[in-house]
Amino acid sequence: SVLPGVLPLCRPPPAWGRATRQPPGPQQPPSLPLAPCRAFSNNKILVELDESSGVAMMKFKSPPVNSLSLEFLTELCISLEKLENNRACRGVIFTSAVPKIFSSGLDITEMCGKSMEHYAEFWRAVQEMWLRVYGSNMVTVAAVNGSSPAGGCLIALSCDYRIMVENPKFSIGLNEAQLGIVAPFWFKDTFVNVVGHRTAERSLQLGSLHPAPEAHRLGLVDELVPEEKLQEKAAAVMAQWLALPDHARQLTKSMMRKAVLDRLVAHRQEDVQNFITFISKESIQKSLRMYMEMLKKKKS
Amino acid sequence: SVLPGVLPLCRPPPAWGRATRQPPGPQQPPSLPLAPCRAFSNNKILVELDESSGVAMMKFKSPPVNSLSLEFLTELCISLEKLENNRACRGVIFTSAVPKIFSSGLDITEMCGKSMEHYAEFWRAVQEMWLRVYGSNMVTVAAVNGSSPAGGCLIALSCDYRIMVENPKFSIGLNEAQLGIVAPFWFKDTFVNVVGHRTAERSLQLGSLHPAPEAHRLGLVDELVPEEKLQEKAAAVMAQWLALPDHARQLTKSMMRKAVLDRLVAHRQEDVQNFITFISKESIQKSLRMYMEMLKKKKS
Amino acid sequence: SVLPGVLPLCRPPPAWGRATRQPPGPQQPPSLPLAPCRAFSNNKILVELDESSGVAMMKFKSPPVNSLSLEFLTELCISLEKLENNRACRGVIFTSAVPKIFSSGLDITEMCGKSMEHYAEFWRAVQEMWLRVYGSNMVTVAAVNGSSPAGGCLIALSCDYRIMVENPKFSIGLNEAQLGIVAPFWFKDTFVNVVGHRTAERSLQLGSLHPAPEAHRLGLVDELVPEEKLQEKAAAVMAQWLALPDHARQLTKSMMRKAVLDRLVAHRQEDVQNFITFISKESIQKSLRMYMEMLKKKKS
Repeated sequence: SVLPGVLPLCRPPPAWGRATRQPPGPQQPPSLPLAPCRAFSNNKILVELDESSGVAMMKFKSPPVNSLSLEFLTELCISLEKLENNRACRGVIFTSAVPKIFSSGLDITEMCGKSMEHYAEFWRAVQEMWLRVYGSNMVTVAAVNGSSPAGGCLIALSCDYRIMVENPKFSIGLNEAQLGIVAPFWFKDTFVNVVGHRTAERSLQLGSLHPAPEAHRLGLVDELVPEEKLQEKAAAVMAQWLALPDHARQLTKSMMRKAVLDRLVAHRQEDVQNFITFISKESIQKSLRMYMEMLKKKKS
Repeated sequence: SVLPGVLPLCRPPPAWGRATRQPPGPQQPPSLPLAPCRAFSNNKILVELDESSGVAMMKFKSPPVNSLSLEFLTELCISLEKLENNRACRGVIFTSAVPKIFSSGLDITEMCGKSMEHYAEFWRAVQEMWLRVYGSNMVTVAAVNGSSPAGGCLIALSCDYRIMVENPKFSIGLNEAQLGIVAPFWFKDTFVNVVGHRTAERSLQLGSLHPAPEAHRLGLVDELVPEEKLQEKAAAVMAQWLALPDHARQLTKSMMRKAVLDRLVAHRQEDVQNFITFISKESIQKSLRMYMEMLKKKKS
Repeated sequence: SVLPGVLPLCRPPPAWGRATRQPPGPQQPPSLPLAPCRAFSNNKILVELDESSGVAMMKFKSPPVNSLSLEFLTELCISLEKLENNRACRGVIFTSAVPKIFSSGLDITEMCGKSMEHYAEFWRAVQEMWLRVYGSNMVTVAAVNGSSPAGGCLIALSCDYRIMVENPKFSIGLNEAQLGIVAPFWFKDTFVNVVGHRTAERSLQLGSLHPAPEAHRLGLVDELVPEEKLQEKAAAVMAQWLALPDHARQLTKSMMRKAVLDRLVAHRQEDVQNFITFISKESIQKSLRMYMEMLKKKKS
């Protein structure tokens, strides 16, 4: 399976719950060493941890468009898991190493002409990624330095804070409806929690991709900055969030997000089944093949 | 009964569900002919369908104020049902043929001095109207060319998009509290989905009628236009929404609205009973009689 | 116990429910006299009722910072109960008689170094206060004439309308996370109902105290006025809300707030237990002691 079975699902702690990520105290086993962890790179994602600040940078480096393939999602989950378990790490900044694109969203080649087993495995990885990012105990900041449709937008929406380069050529949104498909309910729930019901309803039905200034007006991103200021701003925002005691911040985050996280957890297998049934329809397969053809022509 | 028992309740399809309103393909029975349908007019509502664009115009023509009588509601439901089943129709624009008023809301004469049976029949028709408009598979646009209190506001709130004439003399809102009555929970749910909890709470408690510019600021309407541009703008908005594949758009709409629709469906009989109990109170009947007297004096 | 067992919990009436606070009619026992009630003062709160307008002013007078001690909360509940049962009173304005502070929130001395029984009694009083203010049948206006962190902010959030002095030195917010503690779920629910999910999530995680102008931009307060205009504006707003028929307004308010009120009622004992478990942790006790030390040094 994609994710080793031993990885416990990252669940936020219950309200008023157990302490986590606190400096070692009398109640905590003193034998746990700080894991030394500076940088680790896989094929698709580069992770750099600054142990002095406790902040990791996760850079998507899967050209041409950082599409969320099974391999990409698996690396993302494993990298997050490592950081989540590393007590030297308290925050993660997501950004792209590929010019002009943050992430293009789910990799269509994973959804086209594959086996039922593959579709199931892929969808479980998409779910796992969202559960880990949206439910992370760390502070999560999206430094959106390029366009971010569909699943790319979902990653940004799942963070605690979104900063986007102010270039109006970069756009962001859950544009699934444009491709003839429907965003899953937990994409929708995440979106509604950020922009409210009305904006989400209109944007999802139209499959809108919002240029950065519009995304800012709608509340889809929190702040716009010039490209050269992005990393500096992300670091400043991170420092502001890390000034809070981890324990109280984590419990508060969990309280805000638990209902929506629990909803997928409760319907996870059903959601996989729905995806398989939907994606394996001949009409949908045909649409996706046409869409890929169009992308290929565009490239050449 | 008002609505023939054979009319199936217009329910939105489940997420990831069956295809609807798609161009005929191999999976669909090729023998279903396009129903020829240009214009049909009843006593209270004129319906014009432009088969080239797939857009129907539904014009309220029940002077003096397009009040939602049992007859009006029945016609509205039957007309919507026809369009919903007509594969040549993909969108509906609601507007008024009566100057200065979109609709004045529920017809008070239907709620005053009538039998319990009549109250029940009337309330079922109000419910049915809302279930059909809010749950419609078609794109629905309200072209609000006049004032729109109470039930008139509900029709606009139930559409996918609201355009209002920018005249500040025209106002819109759920002003039930002003009349000493309470908007039903599904009016409230629809309102909250559009303007959010806080704006809805304040507006409902005060029974506010918002002049067009204020309604726009609150998000109660999406756009203001000069009266002479209203039809043009409604057609342009409709074209934008119809550019999306019907199937994905319908499933997305259903996903956004299902919880609120289901709530009334689950409590429909109880809601009828609550209405009857409330409306047949002597104190409420007295308020309504006084209100009607006041309206009569105003007229003369 | 703090609150006499005979006090019925102030519960809002069900939708379409019974008439309340109406002029006496044939259905109401004519023998209930109007309770004569002009002004009553306890140690911590001064209550002045203007019987001509039906409006009571509730002035917090517990220097130095109007902290919500067990005694303060008990007086607040008893005062509200008296007004709620007094048919001459239809609205309450909450304000402070202490310069520069509305209320500093829960009294930390009640949560530090006390017995489990005391913690339970204290927390039940906090719950009771919120249930009474948020669920009040009267119109409630907060005239926020000073800073209002944590529990002070909760009182303002629980009113129907919030007016704040425009002084940017006065701030308001649920800043619990700054102290290493977590706002209970019903603080959060009340906050979300006012400012929406996204603003609440960010503000709660950062434990933000928003200066008045920012609080107004976020919708946390409805209006800003110069300090000398505060009482006048509060009276004007109250008059606007009292122009509505009480019965319809109350049922509407109940419809908007019932879900959130019911949630605490359903989990009240569990919420007390959570509080006790949390607050009696050594790490939390230590934080609170340090915080109190800091406050003492600041004072001297």
